[in-house]
Amino acid sequence: MKLAVIEGDGIGREVIPVAVKVLDAFGLEFEKVPLELGYTQWERTGTAISSDDLEIIKGCDAVLFGAVTTVPDPNCKSVLLTIRKELDLYANVRPVKPLPCIIGVTGRNDFDFIIVRENTEGLYSGIEEIGSDISWTKRVVTRRSSERIAEYACKLAKKRKNKLTIVHKSNVLKSDKLFLDVCRQTASANNVEYKDMLVDSMAYNLMMHPERYDIVVTTNLFGDILSDMCAALVGSLGLVPSANIGDKYAFFEPVHGSAPDIAGKGIANPLAAILSVKMLLEWMGEPRSQIIDEAITHVLQKKIITPDLGGTASTMEVGNAVAEYV
Amino acid sequence: MKLAVIEGDGIGREVIPVAVKVLDAFGLEFEKVPLELGYTQWERTGTAISSDDLEIIKGCDAVLFGAVTTVPDPNCKSVLLTIRKELDLYANVRPVKPLPCIIGVTGRNDFDFIIVRENTEGLYSGIEEIGSDISWTKRVVTRRSSERIAEYACKLAKKRKNKLTIVHKSNVLKSDKLFLDVCRQTASANNVEYKDMLVDSMAYNLMMHPERYDIVVTTNLFGDILSDMCAALVGSLGLVPSANIGDKYAFFEPVHGSAPDIAGKGIANPLAAILSVKMLLEWMGEPRSQIIDEAITHVLQKKIITPDLGGTASTMEVGNAVAEYV
Ligand SMILES: CC(C)[C@H](C(=O)O)[C@@H](O)C(=O)O
Ligand SMILES: CC(C)[C@H](C(=O)O)[C@@H](O)C(=O)O
Repeated sequence: MKLAVIEGDGIGREVIPVAVKVLDAFGLEFEKVPLELGYTQWERTGTAISSDDLEIIKGCDAVLFGAVTTVPDPNCKSVLLTIRKELDLYANVRPVKPLPCIIGVTGRNDFDFIIVRENTEGLYSGIEEIGSDISWTKRVVTRRSSERIAEYACKLAKKRKNKLTIVHKSNVLKSDKLFLDVCRQTASANNVEYKDMLVDSMAYNLMMHPERYDIVVTTNLFGDILSDMCAALVGSLGLVPSANIGDKYAFFEPVHGSAPDIAGKGIANPLAAILSVKMLLEWMGEPRSQIIDEAITHVLQKKIITPDLGGTASTMEVGNAVAEYV
Repeated sequence: MKLAVIEGDGIGREVIPVAVKVLDAFGLEFEKVPLELGYTQWERTGTAISSDDLEIIKGCDAVLFGAVTTVPDPNCKSVLLTIRKELDLYANVRPVKPLPCIIGVTGRNDFDFIIVRENTEGLYSGIEEIGSDISWTKRVVTRRSSERIAEYACKLAKKRKNKLTIVHKSNVLKSDKLFLDVCRQTASANNVEYKDMLVDSMAYNLMMHPERYDIVVTTNLFGDILSDMCAALVGSLGLVPSANIGDKYAFFEPVHGSAPDIAGKGIANPLAAILSVKMLLEWMGEPRSQIIDEAITHVLQKKIITPDLGGTASTMEVGNAVAEYV
């Protein structure tokens, strides 16, 4: 098993070393391949991700990724989007689940759902034209991509409550009819119970009634917006992990960004990165991945928490406490 | 002053008569032009909005609108989108403000901001192609529409805290660079203090720190999603009004839809519709519009509230209580 480890920029450089420590505590056989990508790399070399970098990544089985800062050059490829595309990581999986002792903005903890975001097309098609008076981007929906994300979501649903919510905006975007129809058909064919919901209505309902949902499947940018919003339900962007899954590769990253405002202070919350390691272990089929939940419960109960959660612990202190428990 | 009154479908038929009663209580000179549009009309005539209807609307100064149910025929024009387009209602204005005695999902009431949504283009361009294997929609951003929505937002900001937040996704959508640049320039030229924020990050921050914002300007679909989400901050979709403003016409509607699930029961919350009447009065420059706030405070304190807020009052009872106070 070969794991590319990409810290990236900002707090990525702080949370990933700590997450790796937790991973190491499992004593598994890993060949770790460290890679420098992102803003700092772009400053040094003029490119945030090179084709050599991509080849190295493609030589690995999985990636653990921190965060990168967007470079100011509009012609420079986005690291994240390039990797998602090149590795055909079509499913972006974002679990939204409360953590013990942590209260989100709504004060409730009776929810447990997963956002499954189509990760290759929609408004991320890259088909656009920029002018000084008019600019446009093509939002693309294909049957094939809709089918495979729907299949993925149904597979997950079957392991859980068998309930799928399809999120779209087909009352305005006729192109979303294709997505909606394919998702409905796939759910039917898999005997998964489903409903559909308009994205605006869903944003409201996720805040009002988060307990209603199990698996939520949606297009690329809607998933982007809804999953960030749902971090508020959990309590902090520093708590939500994600997995980008393809048929050949998988890529694990905290949902948060490089957070330049708190970078370098050693106070970033490493739990999202540590939970991303948990998703990596699950993906590998490692039965002990649950220990991470126990370890996190342990440190939260002991109030070893970073400032975003009202504590005073450093990134390192939280990480060490989790790693020790594991 | 000629006012088109369109109840539409579902709870639109319940909340609008009540809102009109409140409007009537002001004793202003209005010629009211009732119009039947929407699903029921489509069932009867095969069209949800005809060109004759449009001519009648264009003969009015303003519109008070309830809600319409989307018709199942994909070739049938959307009532709302047709009117927005034909009347060139380019600014969709959605105030997000707590009401007395009502607690939203976050339990806080220290926020007061307005979402100014570009209302004519973006993903609502109508430029799309539908296929069985691939469908697409063009997301269009023009300098002209960005300029006028930015001007509108700046004008509002100057009457308030002079703080503008520009919401976009220009790290992925190069087309949003145009929107962002134009908004920045317009804010600078008007001496309005501004920041910009990515839409995903904004969804999170509006839930975590709603007190930070004053005027939020964004593109069409982002505004659609964020404003529904923000209804959860206020406590119910039944509480948020909106105005669709153009240079010639204005159109006022509650943000909620026709809500078929509760239609016909007489329990729909009329406050969003009543607050839309308040926006109409403000738009007319009527100095007494504030009385509506007082009246609403009065009925909320007396707990004359509909079931969505935990009460037992009917639509009519709430409406009568507000109208009487006025
Ligand atoms: C950084 C950005 C390109 C990315 C996205 O929009 O997908 C991020 O917001 C995410 O959710 O992973
Ligand atoms: C009904 C629909 C077309 C409309 C929109 O998407 O704009 C609604 O959601 C709104 O926010 O007014």
